[in-house]
Amino acid sequence: MKIGIVQTNPVFGAIKQNALDVCNAMASCHADLWVLPELFATGYQFASLEEVEQLAEPVPEGSTTQTLSRFARQHGCAIAAGLPERDDSGRFYNTAVLVDPAGLVLRYRKIHLFAEEKRWFSPGDTILDVVDVGGARVGLLICFDHFFPEAARTLALRGAEIIAHPSNLVMPVYAQLTMRTRALENGVFTVTANRIGFEHRTAERLTFTGCSQMVSPDGTLLYSGPSDAVETVVMEIDPSQARDKALNRWNDRFADRRPAMYDTNLGLAAMEPTDRPA
Amino acid sequence: MKIGIVQTNPVFGAIKQNALDVCNAMASCHADLWVLPELFATGYQFASLEEVEQLAEPVPEGSTTQTLSRFARQHGCAIAAGLPERDDSGRFYNTAVLVDPAGLVLRYRKIHLFAEEKRWFSPGDTILDVVDVGGARVGLLICFDHFFPEAARTLALRGAEIIAHPSNLVMPVYAQLTMRTRALENGVFTVTANRIGFEHRTAERLTFTGCSQMVSPDGTLLYSGPSDAVETVVMEIDPSQARDKALNRWNDRFADRRPAMYDTNLGLAAMEPTDRPA
Repeated sequence: MKIGIVQTNPVFGAIKQNALDVCNAMASCHADLWVLPELFATGYQFASLEEVEQLAEPVPEGSTTQTLSRFARQHGCAIAAGLPERDDSGRFYNTAVLVDPAGLVLRYRKIHLFAEEKRWFSPGDTILDVVDVGGARVGLLICFDHFFPEAARTLALRGAEIIAHPSNLVMPVYAQLTMRTRALENGVFTVTANRIGFEHRTAERLTFTGCSQMVSPDGTLLYSGPSDAVETVVMEIDPSQARDKALNRWNDRFADRRPAMYDTNLGLAAMEPTDRPA
Repeated sequence: MKIGIVQTNPVFGAIKQNALDVCNAMASCHADLWVLPELFATGYQFASLEEVEQLAEPVPEGSTTQTLSRFARQHGCAIAAGLPERDDSGRFYNTAVLVDPAGLVLRYRKIHLFAEEKRWFSPGDTILDVVDVGGARVGLLICFDHFFPEAARTLALRGAEIIAHPSNLVMPVYAQLTMRTRALENGVFTVTANRIGFEHRTAERLTFTGCSQMVSPDGTLLYSGPSDAVETVVMEIDPSQARDKALNRWNDRFADRRPAMYDTNLGLAAMEPTDRPA
């Protein structure tokens, strides 16, 4: 299975041009699953709620999801990508969609919002779900979700073999460390698509750190992108490597877990409202 | 607060000599909390149950815990260290003790047993507990526990500021990666004391990887030991850095958690039987 990453440097607000640039990059070579950054077509640093209102889109009706779905249909691939979503009741979410030739197959609303995102977006209310894409089980995380081991663990326990991780990382190279650990501890592939460049649309200048990466279930860094250049990469992986959770003939990442010994606060409550695409 | 690590190369079965070597190393400089490797006085690779029976000790009555307690009393320090424990009913555990001038203050029985340890030891039944040592809150993990994010998370949620991690690591440098992530994701100090050398007492040759390490709550590698030499190190840390879980003015490692969104299997059941030292 061929996995692609497009590491971008979008122009804030230029949705159509940013989406076109990414489609041109994806058209340059074939991948079965592409992973694009968080908020890949809008840019990241909103300066007002009005900007969010202007740039957010309904899913799947909005133009960005439609553009990605059309590309997926034409090129026979799947695409994971981030965008600002407006729901029916006027709430906004930092959302990742997963589309394939059939259209939208998974929608995930970021559950761990970072910094000023809390001003614009509601915390995610969709479950950490996993779907089949081209014979592999794929789950979604968005950027800061990397910091919380429970998020990747939940996806892995639900069968994820590949965690697609659209990101706009601005902290030190934390996610490059944690996502390597997430891959190893869960025995899954992780695919982090980050952007580069900076935005300085408010008092705070944000520098995006690039270094997109792919990690195999044994923690091997399969790909590490540049910190300061756009780049498109495709790598061949074997998702079945993520099915066997054994470390040796005695140990298994899942069977060796001791939930009764862990703090019950790790995963406490009944499910919150779900929002699976029909 | 001064934290010390003794990276060792013990001779299998030579309990008294190994303990004496470690005491001499600890006497060479002052630390408020010393961390020693897993099974530090016995060596690691048991070849038969008879060997385990011979080398395991009751806690705290056994000679190793007594030796450490005496050292702690004489030098005004605390010591975290691993040893094979025999309980009243004849079961064996891969145990870590934490002693201070008052004697045993914490006993932890490894809950994630690695490889052939499963032949000799019962899975740990003590809770992941935290105690005060010299003004800091200290919890214990042993070696392979590093692989399971729930273990460090549980200690952190229960107030650990320092995770002392006696180890006998034989896999690739996985723990050096994961424990750095554990420190960062939980905002705690991690102190991994590993050994070097090899044992070849059964069909399998085990090479111990050294590279003991200390990590600060922001993921900084404060100390990384050699892979092939014994070494004693003491570093000054400020445990209060582990009290503030904030990453910025919007984000907090604990307050941002979304337990209702995590798989309930992460921490499911009522507590198993506990075994706190009186």
